[in-house]
Amino acid sequence: MKNFAIGVDLGGTNLRIAAVDEQGTLVEKVTLGTKVSLGRDHVLDDMCAAIEHVLQKYANSATMLGIGIGVPGIIDMQTGLLRESPNLPGWADYPVRAEIERRLKTVVILENDANVAALGEKWLGAARDFDDMAMLTLGTGVGGGLVIHGSIWHGMNGMAGEFGHTTVEPEGHPCKCGNRGCLEQYASATAIVRMTHEAIAANNSSALARAVHSDAEFSAKSLYNLAIQGDEDARRIFRRAGRCLGIVLSTLVNSLNLPIYVIGGGVSSAWEAFAPSIFEELRWRSMVYAATAPPDSLASGQGASSQVEARSGHKTIITRALLGSDAGLYGAARLPMIPEDRR
Amino acid sequence: MKNFAIGVDLGGTNLRIAAVDEQGTLVEKVTLGTKVSLGRDHVLDDMCAAIEHVLQKYANSATMLGIGIGVPGIIDMQTGLLRESPNLPGWADYPVRAEIERRLKTVVILENDANVAALGEKWLGAARDFDDMAMLTLGTGVGGGLVIHGSIWHGMNGMAGEFGHTTVEPEGHPCKCGNRGCLEQYASATAIVRMTHEAIAANNSSALARAVHSDAEFSAKSLYNLAIQGDEDARRIFRRAGRCLGIVLSTLVNSLNLPIYVIGGGVSSAWEAFAPSIFEELRWRSMVYAATAPPDSLASGQGASSQVEARSGHKTIITRALLGSDAGLYGAARLPMIPEDRR
Repeated sequence: MKNFAIGVDLGGTNLRIAAVDEQGTLVEKVTLGTKVSLGRDHVLDDMCAAIEHVLQKYANSATMLGIGIGVPGIIDMQTGLLRESPNLPGWADYPVRAEIERRLKTVVILENDANVAALGEKWLGAARDFDDMAMLTLGTGVGGGLVIHGSIWHGMNGMAGEFGHTTVEPEGHPCKCGNRGCLEQYASATAIVRMTHEAIAANNSSALARAVHSDAEFSAKSLYNLAIQGDEDARRIFRRAGRCLGIVLSTLVNSLNLPIYVIGGGVSSAWEAFAPSIFEELRWRSMVYAATAPPDSLASGQGASSQVEARSGHKTIITRALLGSDAGLYGAARLPMIPEDRR
Repeated sequence: MKNFAIGVDLGGTNLRIAAVDEQGTLVEKVTLGTKVSLGRDHVLDDMCAAIEHVLQKYANSATMLGIGIGVPGIIDMQTGLLRESPNLPGWADYPVRAEIERRLKTVVILENDANVAALGEKWLGAARDFDDMAMLTLGTGVGGGLVIHGSIWHGMNGMAGEFGHTTVEPEGHPCKCGNRGCLEQYASATAIVRMTHEAIAANNSSALARAVHSDAEFSAKSLYNLAIQGDEDARRIFRRAGRCLGIVLSTLVNSLNLPIYVIGGGVSSAWEAFAPSIFEELRWRSMVYAATAPPDSLASGQGASSQVEARSGHKTIITRALLGSDAGLYGAARLPMIPEDRR
């Protein structure tokens, strides 16, 4: 290994640090819990100690290109302040970048977590070889990232890509952002658990109620297990998530006409349960999709060959992410490898 | 005048041709009716004769830079074929560009009509001095254009910018595009007349019914006149159009975080009747707008000074277009002045 960068994925639950070389090989990975309850300083202590540990290990054999950090929330790109971060309580308006730079005595690049996931999938994942792409990450919330001409599209204030807060039901479920009926209220892991409780309340004799009551840690993943076992109520909830994703993707396809849209995040593991509903909506809601859809056999194709085929015909690809939970780590490590004006 | 270009706005109703110099001065304008019913060849005869008339007038005193034509519908940018054009029946899949080039013996640039309107407003109108902007044109339908880094964003197939077909009501009014509840079904001139008839059907004692029955050419403009006279039913219809525009603008602001969004087209003359509802929706539906809204006094500011103020603070501007029905003419004439790779 000659040149490498450090990528950090600072989540509300996990704190992960990796060393990635310029070819995209992950040479070292450290996973810690994010001890949010112990406070900001404690989390920063843990992070900086882990980064220094990795740095020392390679100090004599390789050149460190820089440190990229993906954080949940809205970042002011000029000042490096975290403007708003629901999953890191107490961090709002804190000069995160300056503080980490002070501790590590090196330049740090801060970026929104969904944006680094998009950059990771663009570099090494489902959207490699594409210059323009959008990504939706279905996790605790629904994040989004947009890549235009190979660079993250930040918009005027660094706030672009908030696809999770697109209105899909004008009078729908209230969202933390202040709006009603945001995509996040139907396609996040949190929303899927909420919709499960709503389904139980509407019909409390169901298998759903038994599953929830017997599992204190009932999650979107538990519901997916029920769905693949054939539970119709569980399948209906994923279809609803898929329909809402289909509405938002129809808007994105009609507005941006990008070659590829990537769906990642934990909930994307349930792809088989919700993806058919996405394509069903897209076919009738988006005239641009209808005019550019790949043949059915390729529509949700995962393989590299089907993507190459779709691309050569200028077809619209909607596909699941390939890097799983590492997308953000790769994307964060990629940041220091890109010249500042192309990031 | 030294250098000039020809801009053509080929609409379903009017056919307009202009000579515009590099400084953006409109030096000559010819307005004809588009005789759609007489067929494609007749329209092309009229267009080419008018262009040649203008060309001959300036042939000895100035250099002609090229011809740009804005057409309604989806254009295949590679081949110059009109892929789909509801307002020009019989033109679909016709090699418009090649045919005009053959007749005029010069290179012609074909572009979507909403895209040229966006380019016109970006060059000389409400979005001058901005590199990134989006435009919505509220006419017979609702068109859209997106400018990124100073160039029209075409997307992969030249189909980007179809903001009029964003879903605002998942189970709403059927749209010609195949979807239900498109913005176009609530904010176009056609939709406003339809909503008037719906309001009459729901309450046939109203002043609305009298106005419609006494005016064979009742239009969105007639409804606006009723609205400014204080008719509550008329005002309610414009508020509904504004709310739907607000939902779509919330999505655009959250997704793209652009500095400016421009509303043009004939219906934008009714700005006072629908704009307050746009801002009302934006304030609660878009967290990015909430974080970047200019002070209330500037929110819908028209003046250049308020825009400069808003810009220097990186504020989000939502404003009406400045060039009226000439936006497309200016934008079409601008096309040949821009190098091909920056268009």
